[in-house]
Amino acid sequence: MTRTIITIGRQYGSGGKEIGLKVAEKLGIQCYDSRLIQMAAQEADMDAERLAHVDEKRANPFLFSVSYENLATGNGYLLPMNDTLFNIQSDIIQKLAMQESCIFIGRCADTVLKNQQNVYSVFIRADWDARIQRICKLHTVGEKEAANICKKMDKQRALYYNYFTDKKWSDANNYDIVLNSSALGIDKCVDTIVSLFS
Amino acid sequence: MTRTIITIGRQYGSGGKEIGLKVAEKLGIQCYDSRLIQMAAQEADMDAERLAHVDEKRANPFLFSVSYENLATGNGYLLPMNDTLFNIQSDIIQKLAMQESCIFIGRCADTVLKNQQNVYSVFIRADWDARIQRICKLHTVGEKEAANICKKMDKQRALYYNYFTDKKWSDANNYDIVLNSSALGIDKCVDTIVSLFS
Repeated sequence: MTRTIITIGRQYGSGGKEIGLKVAEKLGIQCYDSRLIQMAAQEADMDAERLAHVDEKRANPFLFSVSYENLATGNGYLLPMNDTLFNIQSDIIQKLAMQESCIFIGRCADTVLKNQQNVYSVFIRADWDARIQRICKLHTVGEKEAANICKKMDKQRALYYNYFTDKKWSDANNYDIVLNSSALGIDKCVDTIVSLFS
Repeated sequence: MTRTIITIGRQYGSGGKEIGLKVAEKLGIQCYDSRLIQMAAQEADMDAERLAHVDEKRANPFLFSVSYENLATGNGYLLPMNDTLFNIQSDIIQKLAMQESCIFIGRCADTVLKNQQNVYSVFIRADWDARIQRICKLHTVGEKEAANICKKMDKQRALYYNYFTDKKWSDANNYDIVLNSSALGIDKCVDTIVSLFS
């Protein structure tokens, strides 16, 4: 059987992770999200909590030069922890994609796997108000705080994606499928992806 | 029954029009594409061929001041023919969307109908090589000429969309659904849209 790899980028509060997990369950395949941090920690014999702190974040170029998190690489160059995690995760993503059909949430997996066959990149977005309502419920916070969280997380993800891919996070050209979960509903997004790949 | 309006933006050579026509046929609704020019010509008692010349094009800001195509509006301002056509087409699109479920191809219909309920914006894209091959077949031209046509048409559509909507044509945030017709195939794009709205 042909392996199919689905990468899912997602705006914060759009339900992209929920959609990924539901699609994986329906297709009977694995969905790799934050557990890639645990796998990276195990692979590199590093502390998972320290790695989680820099997950899906670009290193701050101003702080890097004085950061205690810098790690020496074999060739004598210093790499920020963020880049180290990205490199380890990319290796893991490439290995997994060679072995099995699966879904990757975030981690620039669309670009990490750009040279592999049967990789489909999905982006889940949602209207601003719907995202705020979702974040309010998920984090039990008010609308103002939800808006601040949403702006911060989107900015972080965009900076991370743009830095490691040299592309623009919100550019439709990067994706095979973009779905607005607030216009279509989570279940219809799940069904659409499932029917495209089953 | 609730009216459903589907607007389809499309990269040149992506098969967006073909997809729109097939979806319309399967849903049993009308698809309005270049016949909006005929309707505009009839509405404004103007020559359809002259209108077709400026269809889905932004007026050239340098040529406008000396253009013989300028038309005097009732309030004494001059409008380029492009803007006149856009305004007439927008009125027609709004009227049709109030009457029936239908599909509009291009003409910034997503923004023209932004205040109406049950309007879903679709964008069809395709990988560059696939678009070139499609254009070669459609226009019976070589790859080099196809590439020139494709670049020119995309630029024209982007300028037109960005000018009349104040948004960016390729921004995923503008759309409820984006599909890559070369990765998924025309038929799967059609089926996806049909199953979302039937």
